[in-house]
Amino acid sequence: MAERRANSGLDLHLDVDLRHPRRSLERALREAIRDGRLAAESRLPPSRSLAADLGIARNTIAEAYTQLAAEGWLSARQGSGTRVADRPVQSPNPAGRPRERASRGRARRLDLRPGVPDLAAFPRAEWSSAQRQVLATASYEILGYDPRGPEPARRAVADYLARVRGVRADPDRMVLTAGFTQGLRLAAEVLVHRGHRTVGVEAYGHAIHRSVLESTGLRPHAIAVDGHGAVVDELLGSDVRAAVLTPAHQFPIGSVLGAARRQAAVRWADTCGGYLIEDDYDGEFRYDRQPVGAVQALDPERVIYAGSVSKALAPGIRVGWLVLPSSLVAGVVEAKERADGGGSVLDQLTVARLIVDGGYDRIVRRRRLGYRRRRDRLVQELGARAPGARISGIAAGLHALLELPRGTTEAQVVAAAAGRGLRLDGLGTFAAAGHDDRPAVVVGYSRPPDHAFTTALARLVAAVGTVADS
Amino acid sequence: MAERRANSGLDLHLDVDLRHPRRSLERALREAIRDGRLAAESRLPPSRSLAADLGIARNTIAEAYTQLAAEGWLSARQGSGTRVADRPVQSPNPAGRPRERASRGRARRLDLRPGVPDLAAFPRAEWSSAQRQVLATASYEILGYDPRGPEPARRAVADYLARVRGVRADPDRMVLTAGFTQGLRLAAEVLVHRGHRTVGVEAYGHAIHRSVLESTGLRPHAIAVDGHGAVVDELLGSDVRAAVLTPAHQFPIGSVLGAARRQAAVRWADTCGGYLIEDDYDGEFRYDRQPVGAVQALDPERVIYAGSVSKALAPGIRVGWLVLPSSLVAGVVEAKERADGGGSVLDQLTVARLIVDGGYDRIVRRRRLGYRRRRDRLVQELGARAPGARISGIAAGLHALLELPRGTTEAQVVAAAAGRGLRLDGLGTFAAAGHDDRPAVVVGYSRPPDHAFTTALARLVAAVGTVADS
Repeated sequence: MAERRANSGLDLHLDVDLRHPRRSLERALREAIRDGRLAAESRLPPSRSLAADLGIARNTIAEAYTQLAAEGWLSARQGSGTRVADRPVQSPNPAGRPRERASRGRARRLDLRPGVPDLAAFPRAEWSSAQRQVLATASYEILGYDPRGPEPARRAVADYLARVRGVRADPDRMVLTAGFTQGLRLAAEVLVHRGHRTVGVEAYGHAIHRSVLESTGLRPHAIAVDGHGAVVDELLGSDVRAAVLTPAHQFPIGSVLGAARRQAAVRWADTCGGYLIEDDYDGEFRYDRQPVGAVQALDPERVIYAGSVSKALAPGIRVGWLVLPSSLVAGVVEAKERADGGGSVLDQLTVARLIVDGGYDRIVRRRRLGYRRRRDRLVQELGARAPGARISGIAAGLHALLELPRGTTEAQVVAAAAGRGLRLDGLGTFAAAGHDDRPAVVVGYSRPPDHAFTTALARLVAAVGTVADS
Repeated sequence: MAERRANSGLDLHLDVDLRHPRRSLERALREAIRDGRLAAESRLPPSRSLAADLGIARNTIAEAYTQLAAEGWLSARQGSGTRVADRPVQSPNPAGRPRERASRGRARRLDLRPGVPDLAAFPRAEWSSAQRQVLATASYEILGYDPRGPEPARRAVADYLARVRGVRADPDRMVLTAGFTQGLRLAAEVLVHRGHRTVGVEAYGHAIHRSVLESTGLRPHAIAVDGHGAVVDELLGSDVRAAVLTPAHQFPIGSVLGAARRQAAVRWADTCGGYLIEDDYDGEFRYDRQPVGAVQALDPERVIYAGSVSKALAPGIRVGWLVLPSSLVAGVVEAKERADGGGSVLDQLTVARLIVDGGYDRIVRRRRLGYRRRRDRLVQELGARAPGARISGIAAGLHALLELPRGTTEAQVVAAAAGRGLRLDGLGTFAAAGHDDRPAVVVGYSRPPDHAFTTALARLVAAVGTVADS
């Protein structure tokens, strides 16, 4: 089974078994249509180019297309090639509700705001199979109350984080959360309980995180960000004793926290008896070399490590984790108990099952390849067609920073994009007060489904080009 | 398909199709063993009595037992009847982890503390099928962020609550929560934001609820409870402008809030511009007559209605709901966004699918029948063997109040039970300071799995009897 990608027109993952190319290609296409990765009306690559991409005979592709057209999955129209049928046949289950009909090509609003992965690529079949296994094997006691999450799930996540991110994790120092936001909230509540009144926050970041911190009574203290991540020296000598950092890939500037700063941050926390909250939100998505490991490994008693499956799977799977200094475990467990009494046990166990079976790694790898490919196209298109714009922050993650040509403002580009049916966020959306000094937009290239990415990219290029020309 | 129950020795639901009795009995037994309702080593009823219970030929039962023994599900031993095999064959999936081996009969600690349903009866097959349907049909956009929960799920729950509890529900005034605790927390945060400083709380209830309220800064104000529920007149003339009530079945006293008090509570909230928080935690489990509808229907703009699937399904399914006065919707949505950004979308949609398909109603009905039967056995056994104890609060819900014979203390009974491997909670565990004046234990008869209920009941009777005799 070789994982191949169709390289022509449409971004599409197809797992084709080269020993049975036609049968496996048909199956892969049916699945892609059924689970929404290939939306109604999207155009399939010509058989010639798909054959070249997959390394199989062109005739085999043509036969597979014909078969699927006969089954109602595809339609071939004179002059417009082969497309996914307008109303694809329903999944075999007759009780299923009809899928919402996907909107069509150009009329549809597209979205390149950052923070959301490609939801259409959610691995439905793998998830369903893993959950079925969980239901067939889990002991019933596990369905009761446990604010930390079931031990086997904590253990699976701990092993994963140790292996992939170098985290020094231990199930007894972990609490499974409903995602990063809840992890931040629980950590902040415990810090307040321990007398903290302020918290360092990178000058660029998600507004909701600042709002979560403020809701617990902490006053955010902005830390500048440059090409080496947060300027942690700004914390020295302040009265701040806790700080939230995005070391793997600063959001949204895109820099990686440098080695000297990592050391300095941990030293600072140790000296003042404080804590770092490490938001490892896309540590799994590093493209150019080995990922930089988690800061947590430098000092597990001074770093609160937080992550989630929101990027690797989907935000709707509300499974995240905290790996805690031992001094904070009891407080966080109590806070979690008062917050919601625990998370979705079946989701937690299903994630654990995917991790243990290797499915989670396969999913991450597949998505990393897909996002890397989108990133390369983004760089290429912008380089060719909007040369005045400078793109950065692209070594990792699901977004890029697009610094605008001289004389262009964020508002102009965001408005020009909106006029083309494309939602964009300017960098200012993520800036703390007084730090909004560089005109740029943050391009969340992960967000559109594959079939819409080309269109979204064309609209982005057009919007930047129009403004730069005017 | 007639739902029948095996009445002999073992409490067991078996759905047997009388047109195909042997095949359907075999299937029902396999399922019960596979999903843990029938634990390893538990003894099956003699074929004679099961035949009488199910209304089918004794020979059919014997044949089914023989067949399942041949398949490795059961073992028949000389002198000890037919039992579930020690290591039942695994589910067909070879990748599944072996199920934790169930502990054996008498050596095992049992638990009659209230608040948890029979986890072994979680409807695994129905859940799995519903989630598969969700994954086959849901649009991908639904896997993103929505703090309220997906609209189709809110709509399904709204329809259910309107039909079953008379709630005046509307998806636009609802937020799906991670269970009752989170609903209470979110409501409390919004009340604090609106200037509330105190909250009325029934003098008996779960300590965690008082703790949740206190963590938001609200000061609990105890309201006495009697045979007609909370004495809501105590709120009149106080500075309290919000109160949490359990009208359907006071926890743990077990009384139902009377009609006059319902009216008075709503009038009070309306007059002071305040709110009731209605904890409808077991409104679905009423045994003796039609359930009493929700107070919320009397004044949807003054009542915050809160519930969850924790009792009907399992606490590990963290799906609950708030139906809100329109004035509070925006505040609660913001609070939810800051709490965790939303709940498990797949769990929410799976619950919705069960509701829409009728599976949820079937599950509730099945469990109601099962719990009612346990309640009847509890009353019968205690009446026969511990006549000095008085049982009350049994018209609904999953627990009973067992007032102890004169001269007996809670601590004595709890200790005597512990000596027999049975965990019990005294009423004092649930009392606000100054309200712990009646010696009683709260019997959560829902908690043990079916195969352990008889043993748990015997231990309870023995513990009460020993203390009363001494």
